[in-house]
Amino acid sequence: MAEGSEAQAPMAFFIGEHLPAPGSALSFDMLDRAASDNYNMISAHITNINYQTKVQAIIEEARSNGRTRVYIPGLEVEDVNLHPDDLVASGKVIGVTSQWIELDSLDPLIASASRQVLHHEIGYAGFCGLGTLLIDGPKTAQQNLAGYCMSIVQGLAINAYLTINIMLPALGPSMALNQEDLDVSTQDSTQTPEVLYDELTSWDVWNAIRTSARYTSRLGLALKVEYSLPRTHTLKRWFSEPIRYLIIDSTAFLLNTKGYPVLTKPHQKLVTQFARKNPFYLLSNTRYAESVPENPADVEFPPLGSTVVTGGARQTVSVTPKRRDDPQSYRKYLHHHLLNLPPPPPLDSFGAGYQDYLQSPLQPLADNLESMTYEVFEKDPVKYNQYEKAVALALQDLHEQGIEDICVAVVGAGRGPLVTRCIRAATNASIDITIFAIEKNPNAYTHLMKMNRDVWGGAVTLVKTDMRKWEPPNTYVHILVSELLGSFADNELSPECLDGVQRVLHPTVGINIPQSYTAHYTPIMAPKIHGDLLSRATSSNSVDIYEVPYVVMLTAIDFLSQNNAGEPNIHQAWEFKHPVPADELEHDCGFNEHNQREAIAAFPIPRRGVIHGIAGYFECVLYENVDGTAIVELSTRPDTIDAKSKDMISWFAIYFPLRAPMSVPDDSEAQVSFWRHTDGRKVWYDWMVETYSFVLSSPEGSLISSPLTLPSEKSTTSGYARKRVPIAVSEICSSKKNGCLM
Amino acid sequence: MAEGSEAQAPMAFFIGEHLPAPGSALSFDMLDRAASDNYNMISAHITNINYQTKVQAIIEEARSNGRTRVYIPGLEVEDVNLHPDDLVASGKVIGVTSQWIELDSLDPLIASASRQVLHHEIGYAGFCGLGTLLIDGPKTAQQNLAGYCMSIVQGLAINAYLTINIMLPALGPSMALNQEDLDVSTQDSTQTPEVLYDELTSWDVWNAIRTSARYTSRLGLALKVEYSLPRTHTLKRWFSEPIRYLIIDSTAFLLNTKGYPVLTKPHQKLVTQFARKNPFYLLSNTRYAESVPENPADVEFPPLGSTVVTGGARQTVSVTPKRRDDPQSYRKYLHHHLLNLPPPPPLDSFGAGYQDYLQSPLQPLADNLESMTYEVFEKDPVKYNQYEKAVALALQDLHEQGIEDICVAVVGAGRGPLVTRCIRAATNASIDITIFAIEKNPNAYTHLMKMNRDVWGGAVTLVKTDMRKWEPPNTYVHILVSELLGSFADNELSPECLDGVQRVLHPTVGINIPQSYTAHYTPIMAPKIHGDLLSRATSSNSVDIYEVPYVVMLTAIDFLSQNNAGEPNIHQAWEFKHPVPADELEHDCGFNEHNQREAIAAFPIPRRGVIHGIAGYFECVLYENVDGTAIVELSTRPDTIDAKSKDMISWFAIYFPLRAPMSVPDDSEAQVSFWRHTDGRKVWYDWMVETYSFVLSSPEGSLISSPLTLPSEKSTTSGYARKRVPIAVSEICSSKKNGCLM
Repeated sequence: MAEGSEAQAPMAFFIGEHLPAPGSALSFDMLDRAASDNYNMISAHITNINYQTKVQAIIEEARSNGRTRVYIPGLEVEDVNLHPDDLVASGKVIGVTSQWIELDSLDPLIASASRQVLHHEIGYAGFCGLGTLLIDGPKTAQQNLAGYCMSIVQGLAINAYLTINIMLPALGPSMALNQEDLDVSTQDSTQTPEVLYDELTSWDVWNAIRTSARYTSRLGLALKVEYSLPRTHTLKRWFSEPIRYLIIDSTAFLLNTKGYPVLTKPHQKLVTQFARKNPFYLLSNTRYAESVPENPADVEFPPLGSTVVTGGARQTVSVTPKRRDDPQSYRKYLHHHLLNLPPPPPLDSFGAGYQDYLQSPLQPLADNLESMTYEVFEKDPVKYNQYEKAVALALQDLHEQGIEDICVAVVGAGRGPLVTRCIRAATNASIDITIFAIEKNPNAYTHLMKMNRDVWGGAVTLVKTDMRKWEPPNTYVHILVSELLGSFADNELSPECLDGVQRVLHPTVGINIPQSYTAHYTPIMAPKIHGDLLSRATSSNSVDIYEVPYVVMLTAIDFLSQNNAGEPNIHQAWEFKHPVPADELEHDCGFNEHNQREAIAAFPIPRRGVIHGIAGYFECVLYENVDGTAIVELSTRPDTIDAKSKDMISWFAIYFPLRAPMSVPDDSEAQVSFWRHTDGRKVWYDWMVETYSFVLSSPEGSLISSPLTLPSEKSTTSGYARKRVPIAVSEICSSKKNGCLM
Repeated sequence: MAEGSEAQAPMAFFIGEHLPAPGSALSFDMLDRAASDNYNMISAHITNINYQTKVQAIIEEARSNGRTRVYIPGLEVEDVNLHPDDLVASGKVIGVTSQWIELDSLDPLIASASRQVLHHEIGYAGFCGLGTLLIDGPKTAQQNLAGYCMSIVQGLAINAYLTINIMLPALGPSMALNQEDLDVSTQDSTQTPEVLYDELTSWDVWNAIRTSARYTSRLGLALKVEYSLPRTHTLKRWFSEPIRYLIIDSTAFLLNTKGYPVLTKPHQKLVTQFARKNPFYLLSNTRYAESVPENPADVEFPPLGSTVVTGGARQTVSVTPKRRDDPQSYRKYLHHHLLNLPPPPPLDSFGAGYQDYLQSPLQPLADNLESMTYEVFEKDPVKYNQYEKAVALALQDLHEQGIEDICVAVVGAGRGPLVTRCIRAATNASIDITIFAIEKNPNAYTHLMKMNRDVWGGAVTLVKTDMRKWEPPNTYVHILVSELLGSFADNELSPECLDGVQRVLHPTVGINIPQSYTAHYTPIMAPKIHGDLLSRATSSNSVDIYEVPYVVMLTAIDFLSQNNAGEPNIHQAWEFKHPVPADELEHDCGFNEHNQREAIAAFPIPRRGVIHGIAGYFECVLYENVDGTAIVELSTRPDTIDAKSKDMISWFAIYFPLRAPMSVPDDSEAQVSFWRHTDGRKVWYDWMVETYSFVLSSPEGSLISSPLTLPSEKSTTSGYARKRVPIAVSEICSSKKNGCLM
């Protein structure tokens, strides 16, 4: 690929140069060089080595005088790299705060001095007009994490327009190697017990910081990637978080057989996945940072032929090639990779802009938003095909049973897409049908008249009425087709609507399409959505924002309950079947009690995390034929959609929020209860989460110890019984106040 | 004690008869009999055996027809024991809902039918005008607890004036024996893993119920006490909860040597402790409930001479005495015990009505509430005695150093109590002093003039000024006496005030009284306070109620961090000493930074619970003499107040709330950080809680398992390292918006 074409290509991504050393003052020259090197932005330290020297001298002096507090003066002109000039106004500069400070020191002198440095830098950055800062994460996970958090929370209050991004390594344990002590440090390592380091340790730190700051959207992540990558489940966890920048170190690259730097397959996958969410990359050329070597071969590379930590690519070259990794080669590679990304899957393009966007509470009657998207939904490449297949199967079954004069009714016909498919199915099967289209919306009815005149050749009998009041003329309906499902199957009152029209269905051979549908659910981590709700809670709302489910394209989430293969554990809540047995309708005392449902399911959670809410999906059998040889289904479950209705885009998931996030440890369990309530006038849901951990109880019942085994080494000590211990419960959450009127 | 005197004694307690069986309709006869038996109230089932029979038949019929839902009709006249008549209007009747229902059944048919029964009963009880209901707890802790919670939460919504009390056994594991299955039950015991039963299991159930109902004050506990009592730590836990009724079963009694029923020492202690909080007792005479035996000796008693579960009394009588335990004897004994209770400790009488009452945020300037209680505080039997002792010691030290013309100044003299004590100390020591009283409040100053004229004989020089502006005439002050401490020591800005007046103190021999003070803290469970805050949060407040500490007489709390002796672990946060070293004041850059403080401490938590907030206390050295042979102190720490200033009542504790309660497991740790911030204009606190559990890591680092040993059996597997794993963190809580202006 020619160098020229890079710059002209439509830029959906931004690669910046991350300058890891304070160096000298930022200049237009540097920015010019970066631009001429095809970088889109540059990160630069706000202050320089002068300031560091000055502050460290102040600390030293205070310490030698036995003082434990010190006042750090503000920035002088020779201390800073940036000024409020055109350079900053270009928007291409990202500020980096001092990395030599130690906000999480247990020494009050160091911690307080570090905090003052940070706050001076934040204040000055805001003054200069910078919009984005990068701040180094805590030096370790085990010292004074609370002190770090407090410094960041105070920092966020200094300038309301700055976005702060915490730099953290993607792979947890490397934090321990990251430690850079101020030489004046007097840490007392005996004060706090040793922290267990594992892959999620870095995430633990992030989780603490953003929780301490109440999930503000002004706080993001700048995730640092080196050669060693965490395993898939840890990467999934990171992608549920607000990663605003991916900082790729030059040490993350290998050399290919020609001596050019390349990324391993797992790194490529990471970059690709990130590109779908947020296109800001920073390249940190640590091999060349301090002094550009005369000969690139002097720089130490990871051994060629070494195995990458996870998955795919293994470099097996054992002969050292001629090195061609000049500083620019890393950016060129990344540019090349990003320009050659495959197109995103259909749902991604369709849902662009809808990711994690909470839509208004559902009501059975379509609101404006749904009207706007209605046209889009009719273009769903899958849904109506499935309906047509289902109708064809049903017609065939009825035909084979010798039924003549088959009557088909589409109830809630809308703009008529199902009518079209019914006619097509009958035509293709050469079966004559009588067809009705029932619609209560007068505007849609007008459009149905147009369709009947222009498209269906007057073959359809149109009826403008609520389906529950429809009286068909002298006949039973053989196939009753509807599309009343919501994101949680029954949440737009499909059961109640179909109950009301069931009397028109042929009592022995009548078929409902869909025949049955099921609601499904699983607890999830959804920090972005939780932060969104928190920000809404502060404004004055008449509706309790936690007492209502939301339709949402779940994107920045993590499935907390997973099986060993990393697939989400999703449980079926309940099922509705149509037609409803006659005696069930008969026994209903007018309180719609036969449409009540309840569900309780335990979700094992292998790795610690935070439950923010419950994700809901549905599955639906449109039709299974009489001899059971064919079945047509729909699914929105992420683990079954590909098998049942791949690329279907008509439904987003549903999200049931929790007011207070619930932290769960490794090897725990969430028991989630759901109820579909109805009192004959409206329908609503209640939900509740109980969390449990496990202990081992000896046969004598005396000694009790808990196994917390790594997933691969799970075992049970013989004779010991695994027992459940409660951790916490949520409140009973309820959408009663926002229930659907029948 | 004669029977007659009982009825005439002032009744600070109410003993009711708890009727455990549905029996027949409640009548005036029963109430009359109860009244004539000296009961103050009676508990009675709302519905009777007719209703039970009817409902069970409906369930049976539904089940035999294969239906999983059933509609339970409302109450008919022959189903109920109560009517909206004078009997109920007397206020002496407590309703009991059906105990044969199973709200926590996993069988939807049973659970739903049970819920309908409960809700019919609640509705009817409200209609009749009952104010209080008793509802049986879940049948077990391991089935469908969420279903139970949901039924209660829905029940609370039926009538906004009813108070619901959940009946739960004080001793957890006995729940397992409590199970009464509906004979139609089809529980699937394999569905959920076995729950670990321990002493806190019953509390776990309560914690789940009240959390699910968002801590509403309309939900309370009716704690059932039998012969076996839980250990002290579990009883302490219960007493942090809203126990509204103590239900004492007749089986809780032993026979004394004369054959009369008596309570063991631990039972007596429980009854006494309860009497200080809420005086409603119910006696459940299960020995006589179903049919009164002809001969009381036929009723099985716990073996005489058996050992009670905890502590004290052990009955060693081995010869069976003549039984004298007729049904009335239990009530008579309880009456007798309650009438002969010892008087409560001083703080209890002083604080009556203040228990867990959250007082307005503190400001250094006294508000009306503090003015009203000021007079009371001057009557503190301890505080001013301690000040007098301290002044006497200081005078003696100065005198022995040969200082003549000793000058004493009381800064912030208020109404003059400290002036009186200074004069008395000098008179007793026969040391002449010059004494100043500095006060800026003009109203208090007028009162000081009266004191000087009428009491002090004009011996005091009064100065109306802010102490920070006072210029003494031609002299240094040798002893500077102040009472500026708040509940968290420095929270009413004592350090800042004393800094401002330090220049008048003699530079070499000057003494401050107090000389030093320290703030102390520990995480606590405080469900009542949390519920109070939750109820305030729903009304529209301009102040964030979680961003401010409260002065409160902490009563319904449990110390989560305890040592093996059950004493609370309380950590010192920081110390202030006066006078401040001159160079420290000198180096302050005007931002008051020398009065900044920070604290971080880890609190081991042996038993699971919920952290609602942080309790704060203070200790203070008024004066320690030069040779260290005498020290005069004040303390509000519950574990040191008796040693340092027993019966001091001037200060309640301080409470720093958490917005979201944090659940902690057995054998965990809370790390609590505190900061005292100041910017030279105001002073505020930040606080944050991190929770941790522990795992054992093998020497190879591969296998990781967590010890969760019972406190008495704590041990470490050899070679394994105990490491900390994060559970959760709070937000950074801050009182900045409500900080104290300097």
